[in-house]
This record gives sequence, structure tokens and C-alpha cells, in this order.
Amino acid sequence: MKEAKKIPYKIYLEESEMPKEWYNVRADMKNKPAPLLNPGTLEPMTFEELRGVFCDELVRQELDDTTPYFDIPQEIQDFYKMYRPSPLVRAYCLEEALQTPAKIYYKFEGNNTSGSHKLNSAIAQAYYAKKQGLKGVTTETGAGQWGTALSMACAYLGLDCQVYMVKCSYEQKPFRREVMRTYGANVTPSPSETTNVGRKILSEHPGTSGSLGCAISEAVEAAVSQDGYRYVLGSVLSQVLLHQSVIGLETKAALDKYGITPDVIIGCAGGGSNLGGLISPFMGEKLRGEKDYQIIAVEPASCPSLTRGRYAYDFCDTGMVCPLAKMYTLGSGFIPSPNHAGGLRYHGMSSVLSQLYDDKLMEAISIEQTAVFEAAAKFARIEGILPAPESSHAIKAAMDEAMKCKETGEEKTIVFGLTGTGYFDMMAYEKFNNGEMTDYIPSDDDLAKGFAGLPQV
Amino acid sequence: MKEAKKIPYKIYLEESEMPKEWYNVRADMKNKPAPLLNPGTLEPMTFEELRGVFCDELVRQELDDTTPYFDIPQEIQDFYKMYRPSPLVRAYCLEEALQTPAKIYYKFEGNNTSGSHKLNSAIAQAYYAKKQGLKGVTTETGAGQWGTALSMACAYLGLDCQVYMVKCSYEQKPFRREVMRTYGANVTPSPSETTNVGRKILSEHPGTSGSLGCAISEAVEAAVSQDGYRYVLGSVLSQVLLHQSVIGLETKAALDKYGITPDVIIGCAGGGSNLGGLISPFMGEKLRGEKDYQIIAVEPASCPSLTRGRYAYDFCDTGMVCPLAKMYTLGSGFIPSPNHAGGLRYHGMSSVLSQLYDDKLMEAISIEQTAVFEAAAKFARIEGILPAPESSHAIKAAMDEAMKCKETGEEKTIVFGLTGTGYFDMMAYEKFNNGEMTDYIPSDDDLAKGFAGLPQV
Repeated sequence: MKEAKKIPYKIYLEESEMPKEWYNVRADMKNKPAPLLNPGTLEPMTFEELRGVFCDELVRQELDDTTPYFDIPQEIQDFYKMYRPSPLVRAYCLEEALQTPAKIYYKFEGNNTSGSHKLNSAIAQAYYAKKQGLKGVTTETGAGQWGTALSMACAYLGLDCQVYMVKCSYEQKPFRREVMRTYGANVTPSPSETTNVGRKILSEHPGTSGSLGCAISEAVEAAVSQDGYRYVLGSVLSQVLLHQSVIGLETKAALDKYGITPDVIIGCAGGGSNLGGLISPFMGEKLRGEKDYQIIAVEPASCPSLTRGRYAYDFCDTGMVCPLAKMYTLGSGFIPSPNHAGGLRYHGMSSVLSQLYDDKLMEAISIEQTAVFEAAAKFARIEGILPAPESSHAIKAAMDEAMKCKETGEEKTIVFGLTGTGYFDMMAYEKFNNGEMTDYIPSDDDLAKGFAGLPQV
Repeated sequence: MKEAKKIPYKIYLEESEMPKEWYNVRADMKNKPAPLLNPGTLEPMTFEELRGVFCDELVRQELDDTTPYFDIPQEIQDFYKMYRPSPLVRAYCLEEALQTPAKIYYKFEGNNTSGSHKLNSAIAQAYYAKKQGLKGVTTETGAGQWGTALSMACAYLGLDCQVYMVKCSYEQKPFRREVMRTYGANVTPSPSETTNVGRKILSEHPGTSGSLGCAISEAVEAAVSQDGYRYVLGSVLSQVLLHQSVIGLETKAALDKYGITPDVIIGCAGGGSNLGGLISPFMGEKLRGEKDYQIIAVEPASCPSLTRGRYAYDFCDTGMVCPLAKMYTLGSGFIPSPNHAGGLRYHGMSSVLSQLYDDKLMEAISIEQTAVFEAAAKFARIEGILPAPESSHAIKAAMDEAMKCKETGEEKTIVFGLTGTGYFDMMAYEKFNNGEMTDYIPSDDDLAKGFAGLPQV
């Protein structure tokens, strides 16, 4: 070890130090994210229009781009105490293995049964649904973390939970399905015969293995067609980034406790919930001109919405039942190649992050999946934690940054988000262990097909 | 909630408060556990005899029943810091759900990739092997936690790791196997054609799905027949209980920090590693006459070594290649019925715990598995953590104790060991969710067959 370990391996906040408010980064953005549009009128969605789909309080949070802080209700704070604070880990072993002068930290969100950060927003969304007196909520899930998280939150609060699970994931991850069932959720493979949009997609694409965009359409239809139900979404939305700010706020509090200022902050990016949450307080300082940080979004080369997408209004779902959002997007018809493992497969990116990226306040890179799994297996052996494929994108980028420091001799402080564990991704690891994992980078022609479906706004 | 929450939901020790020594409960036992015997001579095994199978330092620990404390080497302390201290959780939500005046705490050992407490001894055993300059270690695994833990420890230290995995588990838990492979372990389904004892068992019982006792025989043979290899075992042995005392020491330190004295301490018991570790410092106080605690071992009704076994010398393995140990045992030929899910399937019990039980210093109860899974699913929904089937035996017993308190009005403080998570046990949960789980209690005739195989000592 290159220094006496004054910083513990794991920094845990005291309960009393945990955040009592979420931070809304939009309040500090000069260029606000573009509003959601009604796909019929192309006018900004109103509170009244949105409240048929989402809980009232969540609509308020979605539409509010000026209030910087929202109180975290006591009941949610209490739930957070069951699995939070999550540790900020100093990666001493990784630093030693890489022989880098960089100091590496990661915020580990995997130590809960959902296996990821998704629980932070699931409990918030379920709480507001319960408070509004609803019977239940509907949602979609791809890799399964979000569905598991929502099932847990609903079981805790006594809400019904209906999950549309992308069919290929339903079949490849039966154990994820069973975790949700253990928490009392009703899990339906999507596309299904239970919704109009599902039946339409099945008739047009018989034998399809589904997509996230399609499962969203089904879940939204299920919500609006049942009394006492609303739809909830685990990423992309600004309300989700608000709830996930707890990750960044805890990270910052832990760093502040030891007087550490990061140079580089790295997160994987699918819909943007983890990255948006992790960076929010740091981005706030950057937006207010108080400090500067290098912020890097890492996405899969097979689903490169930031690095190769268009910044445009697009449908959020395949069935085009949702409002239009302005975001970096590959087009709502884009589906990652079947060899793509794990999550980070959404065609678009959070409007908040899209605007920040467009304003050059953060960078983005993409990585191919065999390189990601190589980093994941190496990390597992060195740091002990078996990471989710999604999280491993950030691991790979952080390792690369640390190796650059080795070349230059810079002692940069790197912080990355380790969003979750890979226990339910062992089929992907098996492929990797057997040397059968492949890469796929969409060609410009592939992408052109997705862009062709963008709406004319 | 029935009181202001002065005790946090999770008590974490500071790094500086973590144990620096393991505690050897044998030092305080008046009636020492009976020594291991050479099966040929029936004389106590000597250091020289044992060092062919185990690392020298581990043999010393195994044979030492007088030294109360052993220093934890700095390298092991550093490894512990990667995933320890584990939280001592106040089960506020469970207390509220049960409406009990009891105060319930659990020591949660599942927040590491092995998914259980097994890592505490795995790193110790791998460390001493490495220090002795060995090339690698061999072992067996049943449910898979131990094999995973050892793979992790070996990957960290750069040791070869050969795991004999009970065949039914190898086939039913492919993802466990892949985790071990990801950590670089060589995993062989047992019985196998790679050892003499494996070939013998296969020829006598073609089509057998294996047993823990059989996998132990193969692993021992593999160790002694390769230069630079030793055998390691994840439970039963006194050295393992020594390493696992870190669980109890942390638990006691966390309780002491808040001035809490438990009334009842509960742990599941298979070979005894978790229970022995959890109770050791408390049992020490009891043995020294300083304090009294009610201590309860909980075992499956389908493998009831303490509650229905004989206290006798027995073979530790099916192939009878290991020394004889005096323990509560069902006979080395006993194999739990095929419907038994998860671990806790070893035919015998740690000699230390057997002696303490025989001296009436602790109690034992057995529980049927459908009741265990009912408690597990309930616990998951209330406390958020999806428990391993093994750990859920302790959950069920703790809930029952808490319900007794509800009847009597007693405000007992109950502490139990939550040894691990059930993420790799979803096939068992699926059976439970589908209402297909069954119970099996061996008849007296079934047990008589096992007892008939006990050696004449």
C-alpha cells in the first residue's frame, strides 16, 4: 500500500447524517430540460394530463424545475434506513493491483435485495401512490432490478404490483421473476395478450422477444385502464433523478467528511437514473460555478444514445402511448442486438442529462461488452464484489482513467457509481467465462433505421 | 413504532473497533471437546498426522483448546475490511409487524459475494495456505456458499482452488458454479471419476446425485495426492469456529456500544460454523459464570443431528478417509431426503457445539421446511432482505420467541444470526411460491439405518 490508510475502506454515514431532502438539479440549470409534449397537440403536458398516468405528487415533482430541494417524507427516510446509507468504498485493492497513483472510490448501491440503486426511487413512487389511496401500480422491467425494487417497496406498503417483464428477460432470468413473486408481485411476460398494445405488437411481430419500449406501453395501458392504479417508471424521468439524488448527496457527504474533492465522477448510463443521481450535487456546484468536476457517462457501444444518438423529441415507448420527450435518442424503434447482456438498453436518455450533455457540462463514452466483462471479472477478483454488467461499464471507465494517471503520474481522485451486483446475470458471465461473449456495434445504417422513426416535431 | 428509535436501524462498528483477535471458546470449556481420532489406531490425531491434510497453522489452531485468543493476521484484517464489519440490524419493522414487545436484532452476514458468513473462515484458511507456500487448496461445497467464499479468497491471494460440488447442487445451481468459475475456481461435480473414492462410489451407486460426505472424501483425496495442496473445510472443525468468532465478537461489541444485553441468542445449525461463531463470546461469559444467556440452535427437521442424533464418534465423510470426530451425528451414511432445500445437510455437528449441547449449555430445536419458507417470505417482505433457506431457520425461531413475548408481555432482547441471502436459492423459493414445497421428517427406522453405520469406538 502506498500510504497509511487514514481513509477507511468503507465510509458509512451515521443515520443522523443521511440526507433529509432530495436535490433537484434542474433548479440550478440555466438551460432547463425541454418539457414533455402531448403527442397529439405538441403542447407541453399539463398537470391534469399527466395525473391520469402518474400519482399527483410525482407529477408535481416531474414538472417542477425550479424548487432546489424536496423534503424526503419520514416514512421514506425510515425505509432508507433499512438498507442505506450505502458505503462509499475506497478501492485500496484495485489501486494496488493497477499500481496507479489515482485514488479510487465507488459508491456501492448493490447491498439490498433489488441488487441495485433502483430501490431509492421505487419506495418513493410506491409511497406517493399509497398516500394517494391507490390500490396498486404497474411498471415494466428489463434486466429485472427495477421490477424487484418496486415489488419490495409495494410489499412493504401493502400495494398491488403488476410488472410487465420483457419476454426474453422473463425467460432468461426465471430467478428474478421468482424474487418478484416472493414479494407478491404479479409478473407478466411482455408483449402479452393482456393489453391492446401487447396484442397489436404480437400480431405484427409474432415471436418477438419484447423490448423495454413495448413493456412500457403495456404497463401504461394497464395503469390507465384499471381503477386505482397508476404507472411508475424506474429511470429516464426527472422525478426519478430527483429521488436518486440520495446517491450523490450521500457520496458528497461522505467525501466532505474526510475533506476529499473528486476530480472525475463516472457513472454508467442507460436511462440515466444512477448517473443523474450520483452526479446531481456535484453538477449543482458546477452549474453554480462553485467547483469544477470532470463527469463521464459510460454507455454500451451496442446502445449508444448519448455518443451516437440525436438530440430530438421522441416517443418514450414503442406503442407511442407516452408523452414525447426531448432527449438523446436512437429512436423508439431501436432495439439493441440480441447478444447485448444486461440493462442499459433503453433507446433514449433522461432529458436532464441530455440537456447537460448538450451544454457540454458532461462527457460520454461508449464501451464494448467483452471489455466490460473483462473489467467486471477483474474487479470481482480484486475487490470481492461481483458487479452487475451495467455497473461494470463504469468500472471499466474508472480503470482506464486510473491507468491514464499511472502514465501521467497524476494523483487524481476518481469516484464511480457501482450500481449493483451481478448475481442474476450469471448466464452472461457464463458466456464470458466460456469465451463465447461477442460484441456488436450498430452500423450507421442500423442507426438510420431508428432515426427514421423519430416524430416530426 | 413503540419507542423513539435511539438505537439505529443498523449498528456498524468503526474499522478501529473491529476485532483484532479471534476467540477460542474451547479455552473456557471445562469439558473439552473430544479429540479427533485416527480411524486406524483410535488414538488422538497428532500434529504430524494432520499436517498432511491441513496447513500447519490450521492444525495448530485445531489442536489448541487452551489458548483463548489468536491474533488475526493483518492481511486477514485488511481483507475483512473489504466486507466487514457486517451490520447488526435492529428489526424495527419485524417487531412492528409482529406487534411484539420483544426487541429483535440480527447480525447480517449476507452482504458479500459469497452471500454468507463463510468468507470469514475461507480467507483465513487460504491465507495460511498461501503463507505456507502452497500452490492451492481443495474443498467440497453443497449449497455453494463455502465454495464461492473459498474461490473469492483464493482469487484474492492467487491460490489455485479446486471445488468438489455435490452433483445435485452442481446441476440445480449452475449460477453458483459460474460465480466460482468467475473467481477462477475449478469446479467438479461429485462424485466424479477424478478420484479413487469417487470412482468407487460411482460404481457402487451409479446415478447417485452425491452428498456432502462424499464430496469431502474426494476433496481430501485430491489434496493429499497433489504436491503443494491441502484440504480446507468450511464448517464443523474447531478452527472454523475460531475464525467465525468474528461474528460473535462484532455482535457483542455492537451491543455493548449501546449497553444492550441479549436474553436469547439464536442461530441455525448445520455443521455449526455460524452458530459457533455467533455465540462464542457470549458462551465464554456463560462458561466463566459471568452472565447467562438462553442459546438456541435451530436445525432442519429433515437433518436433526442435535435433536435426534447420537453423541458418538463417527466418520466425518462418506469415504471414511477423514479422522473420527465425537459429535452429535446421524451417521455418516445419512443423507437428507431429496426434497430438502438448501444447506444444513451435514450428518454431524461441530465437536465444540456437541459438547456444549451435551453439557446443557445450549438448547436445540428442529423446524420443518415449509414453516421455514413461510417465515422467510414474510421476513423478506417486512425487512427487505431475501434470506437464505439456512438462515431462515433462525428467523422462524426468532419470530416464535417474539410471539411468545407477545403472549407473556416480556420485553426480551432476541439476537439471531442472519447468515446469508437466498439469491441462489430461487428454485426452492419457486417451489414454495407455487405451493409445491413438501416436508419430510425421517422416521425412527430411517435414523436407525444411519446409526447402524457408526463405528465401534
